[in-house]
Amino acid sequence: MLTASDAARLVATGETRSEQLVEACLARIREREPAVQAWQFLDEAHALSQGRERDREWANRNRAGGSALGPLHGVAVGVKDIIDTSDMPTEYGSALHAGRRPEKDAAVVTSLRAAGAVILGKTVSTEFATYAAGKTRNPHDPTRSPGGSSSGSAAAVADGMVPLALGTQTNASVVRPAAYCGVHGFKPSHGRIPRDGILTLSPTLDTVGMFARSLDDIDLLARVLAGVETVAADSRTPPRLAFVKTAVWERADLPTRATFAALSAALGSACEEVHLPEAHAGAWDCHRTIMEAEMAVQLDREWENGRDRLSFSLREQLGRGRDVPASAYQRALKRRTQLADSVAELFTRFDAVLTPATAGTAPPLETTGDPAFGTLWTLCGVPAISLPLLHGPDSLPLGVQLVGARGDDARLLRHARWLEDRLRTA
Amino acid sequence: MLTASDAARLVATGETRSEQLVEACLARIREREPAVQAWQFLDEAHALSQGRERDREWANRNRAGGSALGPLHGVAVGVKDIIDTSDMPTEYGSALHAGRRPEKDAAVVTSLRAAGAVILGKTVSTEFATYAAGKTRNPHDPTRSPGGSSSGSAAAVADGMVPLALGTQTNASVVRPAAYCGVHGFKPSHGRIPRDGILTLSPTLDTVGMFARSLDDIDLLARVLAGVETVAADSRTPPRLAFVKTAVWERADLPTRATFAALSAALGSACEEVHLPEAHAGAWDCHRTIMEAEMAVQLDREWENGRDRLSFSLREQLGRGRDVPASAYQRALKRRTQLADSVAELFTRFDAVLTPATAGTAPPLETTGDPAFGTLWTLCGVPAISLPLLHGPDSLPLGVQLVGARGDDARLLRHARWLEDRLRTA
Repeated sequence: MLTASDAARLVATGETRSEQLVEACLARIREREPAVQAWQFLDEAHALSQGRERDREWANRNRAGGSALGPLHGVAVGVKDIIDTSDMPTEYGSALHAGRRPEKDAAVVTSLRAAGAVILGKTVSTEFATYAAGKTRNPHDPTRSPGGSSSGSAAAVADGMVPLALGTQTNASVVRPAAYCGVHGFKPSHGRIPRDGILTLSPTLDTVGMFARSLDDIDLLARVLAGVETVAADSRTPPRLAFVKTAVWERADLPTRATFAALSAALGSACEEVHLPEAHAGAWDCHRTIMEAEMAVQLDREWENGRDRLSFSLREQLGRGRDVPASAYQRALKRRTQLADSVAELFTRFDAVLTPATAGTAPPLETTGDPAFGTLWTLCGVPAISLPLLHGPDSLPLGVQLVGARGDDARLLRHARWLEDRLRTA
Repeated sequence: MLTASDAARLVATGETRSEQLVEACLARIREREPAVQAWQFLDEAHALSQGRERDREWANRNRAGGSALGPLHGVAVGVKDIIDTSDMPTEYGSALHAGRRPEKDAAVVTSLRAAGAVILGKTVSTEFATYAAGKTRNPHDPTRSPGGSSSGSAAAVADGMVPLALGTQTNASVVRPAAYCGVHGFKPSHGRIPRDGILTLSPTLDTVGMFARSLDDIDLLARVLAGVETVAADSRTPPRLAFVKTAVWERADLPTRATFAALSAALGSACEEVHLPEAHAGAWDCHRTIMEAEMAVQLDREWENGRDRLSFSLREQLGRGRDVPASAYQRALKRRTQLADSVAELFTRFDAVLTPATAGTAPPLETTGDPAFGTLWTLCGVPAISLPLLHGPDSLPLGVQLVGARGDDARLLRHARWLEDRLRTA
C-alpha cells in the first residue's frame, strides 16, 4: 500500500507508471469492494485511461518547453459523491438524483486534475451528506459503521483502495469517519478550500476535507487544495496543548474517557487540561439551529418534489429546519460569532486543542455514529484533524483530534506531526 | 448662516472664535426651536464650554510642539439621538429609554471630537429610528413633516441651527428628510462609517449618514468620518447618468414624475433612461423581510418589557418580524446579494443613477413620508445623496437623488458636484 507521496515520487522518477498504480488500486477494489462497498461509481476503463494519459504526459514532459509535472502526477484520488465531476455521475447519495451528470468539475476536482491526479471514482456519501447511513462498511469490521457522511472516502483510504480521498464536513463528517476507519482526516479552516460545484447543505458550516494514510499525504493534498505550506518544524520543541473535554464529554464511553485522560497525563508538561467557559455548552443547539435552518432552504426543492423518497431522519431534520424562526437563526449566528471569538482566544494561549475525535470506536452499521465531538469545532470554523493513534478495547481505531486556530492550518499540521512522532517513539 | 467649511476657516484663521459660532447657533435655536422642535437634548452651557475649550486649544496651538488643529475645529455638529454621547443622554426616541446615559461616545462622535467639532446637542429621532413621527416639524412649513427617521438632524441643518448633523439610514432615513427639508443628505456605502455605539436596528441595512447645507460641507464631513477623498474633478466633462424610475415609480406624485422626466431630458446626452430588470421589483419585499426580521431580534428586550409603550406601527413591524421564518430570511439575504450584483453591473456602464429622493414634497405632519425611493439603494448598500435642487408646485423642496457604485463614494460626490454646477448655471 503506497502512500500518495511515495506514489507521486515513483511516477515522477519513472520507476512506476500511473497506469500501474491505478491498476493496483482497481485490483484491491475488485478484491475488497464486495465487503467494504466504498464506491458509488467506478469505471475501470476510464480510470486506466486517465492513468495512461498521465503516463503520456510524463513521457512528453521535456518536449515543447518542458511543462513541469504536478505534485500529484499520476496519483489516484477518490472523490465523495456530492462533489461534481464532469466525467462521472454525482448523485448526492440520494435516489432523487440518481443518474445526475454535472456538466462541470467542482473547483477542487479542477485543482486535483491540474496537479496531475487521476480521479479514480466517486465514493459513497450518506444521503445528502447527512445522517442516514449508506451501504459502506467499516473495513476493520464489516458489522461496524465507517462513520459518515464521507463514509466511502474514509473506508476506501483505510482499506488501501486509494491513497487519497476528498470529503466534506458540516458537523463531523470528515473527522468521525477518519477516526472510525483509522486514517488521517483533515478538515481545514472554514472557507479555506473553495466549495464551487459541491452540494451545499449549510453555507455557514460546510467545509471541504480530505483523507489519507499519512501526515505527509495530508500535507501534500492540503498544499494542492488549500495552499497550506507546512514547514518542517523542530519536532523536539513541544507545543502547548490544551486538553479540552467540552460539554459533551459524558457522551464518550468510559474507555475513551480513560484513554484520553491517560494520553493527556502522558504528555506531561506539553498538555494542560482546560475548561471552556460555561457558555460553550450552547454550541450544540446553536449548530443544530444553523444547520437545520440552512439545510431546509438548500434542500427545499427535494422537500417539495420528493419528500417521500427522503429518509425519515432527513425528513425530520428538514421539517424542524423549516420551522426555525428568523429570530432564532439570527441569534444562533450571533452566538456562533461569540463562541468563535472565545475559541480564538484559547489559541492565543495554546498551540492546539487535544480532544477525542469521536465518542468511542465505530458503532454498529445502523448508525453513522455520534457527531458531537466535531460540532463545536465545525461551528467555529477552526481546522481539525483526526490522527489514527489509538485503539479501543475492541481493537478498533480511536482517533485523536487536534484542533488549531482558524486560518493557521499549517501550524496545526506541524503540531500533529509532533504528536505523532511523540506517540510513535514513546 | 455660515457653512461648516466657512466656519472652520474663520476659526482656523482667528477671525471668529468657536464660542461665537456656538452662540450664533444657540441664538438661532432659541428663536426657532418652538416652531421647529429639532432638538431632543441641548445644554447651552455645555455647548458654549466646548466652544471655549476649542478656543483655548486654538490659542495654544503653537505651544508644546504645535499640534495641528482638526478640520472641524470649533465647528458645531448635531448628533441624532440614537448615536451615543458620553456627555449627553441618548434616548433612541423612545420613552422606554428616557434618561439613558451612555458611558462612551459612539465611534463617529469620537471622530468628530478628534476633528475638533463641538457636539452641540442631540437631534430628534423618530421612535427607534423607524416610522412613528417625533415632535419635529418641517422648517419650511410647520404643518409638514421633516421626514424621518433623522428628523431633527435634517430640520436643524435646514433651519440654520447648526451647519452639520449626523443621521442614520435603514430604509430612507437620511435621503428622505434631506429632500423634504431642502438640504444635502449623504448616505455613504454600507459599512463605510463604523457603527459602534449606535442603536442597531438591522445590521444588514443600517448605515450612518450626514446632513449639510453645501456639497463642500458634505465633502468635509465625509473625509472626517469615512475617509472619502474627493478630488476636484473637471466639471465640464459630463458623467454618464442613468435615469432610473424603479418599480415604485407610480408611487411618485404626478408633478414629481413630470419634473424628473423633464430634468432627465434637459440633461441631454449626459442622461439616459435605463430600465432595471424585472427581478428588481422584488427588492421592496426583500428589504422589508430583512429589516423586520432583524429589528425583531434587536428590539427583543423592548418587545418583552415594554411592548405597550411602543407605537402601534412599531408593534406591528416587530410582530411581523418575529413571525419571519428563517427560510424566508435566508432567501431575502440571497436575493439581496443578487440585486446588489445586478446594481453593481449598472455602474460598469454608468457613473451614477439619477432618481427621485422621495415620492414628492413633504407630507403632512402625521407621517414621515414614503421611504420607497430609498429602499432599493439602501438594500444594495450603495452610496446615495439627496441634492436640494428642485421644488414642487407647493414651492417646497424636492430632492434629486444620485446613487453611485458601492465603495466609490468619492466618485458619487464628484458627479453630484457636476450636477449641481450644471443645474445652477442652466
